Amino acid sequence: MRKIGVVGIGHVGVTVAHIIIAQGLADEIVLVDKNPEKLASEELDFRDAASLLDHHVEVHAGTAKDLADAEVVISALGHIELIKPGGDRFTELKANTPEVQQVGSDLKQAGFNGVLIVISNPVDVITGIYQKATGLPANQVFGTGTYLDTARLKRALGDTLAIDPRGISGYMLGEHGDSQFAAWSTVKALGKNADELVKLYNINLDKVAEAARVGGFTVFAGKKYTNFAIAHAAVSLAKLVLSNARREAIVSHYDERFEGYISTPAIIGRDGVTAEFDLQLSDDEKVLLQKSANAIAEKTAAYL
Amino acid sequence: MRKIGVVGIGHVGVTVAHIIIAQGLADEIVLVDKNPEKLASEELDFRDAASLLDHHVEVHAGTAKDLADAEVVISALGHIELIKPGGDRFTELKANTPEVQQVGSDLKQAGFNGVLIVISNPVDVITGIYQKATGLPANQVFGTGTYLDTARLKRALGDTLAIDPRGISGYMLGEHGDSQFAAWSTVKALGKNADELVKLYNINLDKVAEAARVGGFTVFAGKKYTNFAIAHAAVSLAKLVLSNARREAIVSHYDERFEGYISTPAIIGRDGVTAEFDLQLSDDEKVLLQKSANAIAEKTAAYL
Amino acid sequence: MRKIGVVGIGHVGVTVAHIIIAQGLADEIVLVDKNPEKLASEELDFRDAASLLDHHVEVHAGTAKDLADAEVVISALGHIELIKPGGDRFTELKANTPEVQQVGSDLKQAGFNGVLIVISNPVDVITGIYQKATGLPANQVFGTGTYLDTARLKRALGDTLAIDPRGISGYMLGEHGDSQFAAWSTVKALGKNADELVKLYNINLDKVAEAARVGGFTVFAGKKYTNFAIAHAAVSLAKLVLSNARREAIVSHYDERFEGYISTPAIIGRDGVTAEFDLQLSDDEKVLLQKSANAIAEKTAAYL
Amino acid sequence: MRKIGVVGIGHVGVTVAHIIIAQGLADEIVLVDKNPEKLASEELDFRDAASLLDHHVEVHAGTAKDLADAEVVISALGHIELIKPGGDRFTELKANTPEVQQVGSDLKQAGFNGVLIVISNPVDVITGIYQKATGLPANQVFGTGTYLDTARLKRALGDTLAIDPRGISGYMLGEHGDSQFAAWSTVKALGKNADELVKLYNINLDKVAEAARVGGFTVFAGKKYTNFAIAHAAVSLAKLVLSNARREAIVSHYDERFEGYISTPAIIGRDGVTAEFDLQLSDDEKVLLQKSANAIAEKTAAYL
Repeated sequence: MRKIGVVGIGHVGVTVAHIIIAQGLADEIVLVDKNPEKLASEELDFRDAASLLDHHVEVHAGTAKDLADAEVVISALGHIELIKPGGDRFTELKANTPEVQQVGSDLKQAGFNGVLIVISNPVDVITGIYQKATGLPANQVFGTGTYLDTARLKRALGDTLAIDPRGISGYMLGEHGDSQFAAWSTVKALGKNADELVKLYNINLDKVAEAARVGGFTVFAGKKYTNFAIAHAAVSLAKLVLSNARREAIVSHYDERFEGYISTPAIIGRDGVTAEFDLQLSDDEKVLLQKSANAIAEKTAAYL
Repeated sequence: MRKIGVVGIGHVGVTVAHIIIAQGLADEIVLVDKNPEKLASEELDFRDAASLLDHHVEVHAGTAKDLADAEVVISALGHIELIKPGGDRFTELKANTPEVQQVGSDLKQAGFNGVLIVISNPVDVITGIYQKATGLPANQVFGTGTYLDTARLKRALGDTLAIDPRGISGYMLGEHGDSQFAAWSTVKALGKNADELVKLYNINLDKVAEAARVGGFTVFAGKKYTNFAIAHAAVSLAKLVLSNARREAIVSHYDERFEGYISTPAIIGRDGVTAEFDLQLSDDEKVLLQKSANAIAEKTAAYL
Repeated sequence: MRKIGVVGIGHVGVTVAHIIIAQGLADEIVLVDKNPEKLASEELDFRDAASLLDHHVEVHAGTAKDLADAEVVISALGHIELIKPGGDRFTELKANTPEVQQVGSDLKQAGFNGVLIVISNPVDVITGIYQKATGLPANQVFGTGTYLDTARLKRALGDTLAIDPRGISGYMLGEHGDSQFAAWSTVKALGKNADELVKLYNINLDKVAEAARVGGFTVFAGKKYTNFAIAHAAVSLAKLVLSNARREAIVSHYDERFEGYISTPAIIGRDGVTAEFDLQLSDDEKVLLQKSANAIAEKTAAYL
Repeated sequence: MRKIGVVGIGHVGVTVAHIIIAQGLADEIVLVDKNPEKLASEELDFRDAASLLDHHVEVHAGTAKDLADAEVVISALGHIELIKPGGDRFTELKANTPEVQQVGSDLKQAGFNGVLIVISNPVDVITGIYQKATGLPANQVFGTGTYLDTARLKRALGDTLAIDPRGISGYMLGEHGDSQFAAWSTVKALGKNADELVKLYNINLDKVAEAARVGGFTVFAGKKYTNFAIAHAAVSLAKLVLSNARREAIVSHYDERFEGYISTPAIIGRDGVTAEFDLQLSDDEKVLLQKSANAIAEKTAAYL
């Protein structure tokens, strides 16, 4: 049985669960949340929905104990209500930390030994807290990091070039937050690198990066949360783990150079981060990555 | 291009749209809502999400005019906030009627000639209002009716028998509301009819029907709305239309006997209700169906 | 990892493997065949194909040893070249028996403890041989039996009624061969049983059953084998096992009454046949089922 | 209704049809072949198979007339039996030409105005013949060209690097035949270009390209045809057309520079080749591309 757990079924978690159910990615999904009424409500709504699908999926409400044999657990718990429009994700740090430590400890006690994918914010810090609390090897715990920011960058560039973003490569690096940056040296579209794109199509790279960044706020402004894109980001990564794809993806994972979690690309497979590789960054980009790592460290100290 | 429109992107409509996007059921989806900020927010979140999917889907915010060439439009507009726990769906009638007439009229003016699937409540009445406002042939406008109630009945019976509900046949007939009833003469599970199931497995049919009915309230109680199951119900029906499946399904459609919309099974295909057929109901069930039709008529008069 | 093995990659086996790969039903598929050139050819063609899919699938050529941890193994080995147009599937018995015993013994030695789904013919007998050779509990070994014949019956009836066959219930019972019969007492379409269908729609049941039976020969006549429908039948059953669906399906499974394998419906889930249930057959149908069981036994004695 | 036609249902065409049916990519598929027994056999086998799927698909045998309103037609007709191991695809040219002219003329007469995707070999020449015979705009007729060769190149490089080939970018350019070449300047894997990959991972690029080329022959040697990978290549391209993906893909399309069809990347969408773009090739690669175009022209003259 392919079993997935989702911890925290607010806007994002419930959407993660829904994608897994609607796409038939698991034979069994276990929902964990601290609000029992909400949990019972979502469980039953999903069970009714599942009876209308072509495939069979078991949906259960449970606790961390029921995740002992899960292959993947996705953490979506959080306190989005603490974030103000334009505010920093670190505002959630203080409230999320004890809950994350509890869930991590519960997973450890249950004997969970799968891969833990973290959406909870500030994701670069929370992922590290989860890794310590679960005692899992660092490769088995990673965060969605700038995976979604990278998707937004490609979407914005795709809009500009009038092409499907899925044919574009490249990365937003660093913090899943203000200090992230578009690493233009890694971008390729239409067989061309960023410099050539600028020349040939008269593209303003700063505007593209800004469109990617502003995107998140536009979504937030209209409904006071974001859920669909971030949930699909987490599920995309879960698919790479479940199928042992050993495919390149950008995630927040432990980086010895910075003694912390930060987003750079890695190879994702059955064991989470199955291999690392260095990007050929420009000197400017190396500086920006270091600055972003510093920003994470500084804000962690300030907010915790 | 396979194009679908979703009108009303509250809890249910946005979930309908999400399923269509996540399962790749359309090449283009147009979202229509009276709240422009919410609309812009959902559009962008979906566009970011779509860039993470394996398939290509175009997501657009629009108006009824953009639905001229849609193959299917799903109406999910409503005023769920007017419903109290345990309350009647007719509470929404007064608020929904003018909006439905406007949307119906806009669709007519746009020249929409596809199939309109109605979720908006009270669905048996609203579907009729839509049919008049759009001027579409009656077969091209139908409501989800007791399709979900039927799914809940099978799910509850499946729970009791410890089998997958998808192998069970049978129907909840009548109003999508209090006067609906389980037509046990139509139920078959494990190769047995309801009488035999009662004898062989000691099943209490009333408890099963009650579990199906209570289900909706349990979901509502925990989150003050229901969305996943009803959205999947509507999308399941849309699939039958899009693929011209000519498959049996229970929907709220026009019934000459009652001069109104009510749920009995029909054949669903490219033109909506492509064929009708009579069930072999017991005499008791015939009376209950008539009573349910009466209840719809009486409440329509009382609430409008 | 979800792992499936396919033993025998002739026309049917290679199509089974292709469906599994194309639909992404496994993370790893192991192909086993006695012809190493054919095996290497199919493995590489599949690997190239897999690189073009949206999902990640590992394709490996292997031996029974590599199936130790497979969740499902599908046996499609056979000697279709021994069957003459209109001939009996028992013609393959003598050639298939030692190969089946060898594969079964190899699976036993490897420690395979999943579910074995048998397509190899004559399937009712070969499934029994596999069960003995593998030493697996009877419920973990079943044959496709009349699952496809039942599908053909529904398809023929659906053609006659101009409706989708997937909304029709009912069974072809008995041998996957000449002595099988349409159990009309189990058939339901458009909310009506067979008698009512005859009266209301002027249907000739014998012609429908004949169309179902003749179908197989028409396919065979044009290409000297059949592969697509039978392969989808096996994969459909594998899906029920993999997702622990506990859904009703007709398969060839061990029947104490006849001390042998024969097709009647059962509940299929993670352990193969997870539960049995009696059909409410007419007296005539009970006689036909006994006759079919006798036919299997007699032909087994005659051909082995 | 989403309608697709497949012309020529030999090994490749029948596999193309099977993928479309098994993945539910069309609501209706029309099979066209000059052998009526084979056609009837495949139609019925597919119809039985379709009744076992979760989705509804209509399968029909037909003629070019039935393709008037198809959105995509895929040509897989050919004379694979004329190809000897290691032989040139041009061996099929003489036999395929009149058949292709007939089908093209039939499509023209039927009023077909969708996109024609050509697999038939020698694909670069046959695609041009189809374009003339159908009278369709050049952008609406393209060949699979080196799309599969490119997939094989990535698969071979992925094997060498132990990563999923779907994260690798780059192209095999030129003829779908001996004069094709790996354009290493376009290749990127693990965030690195080919030169860096050679240095860092000690990769022998010639061996990788050779493995890609030899792959086709290995497949051919074991079963005397290839089908799965080439069929998935054609279907992948059809998906881009059907969803108007406007995504980059390498196909054989008309190139003014060479006054003929040859494979370089283009943007694929609803109108076939919806946009062109120049690659930044090295000088050596520009020469190789010209040589490949010359080879096509020379062999066309020699074999026709």
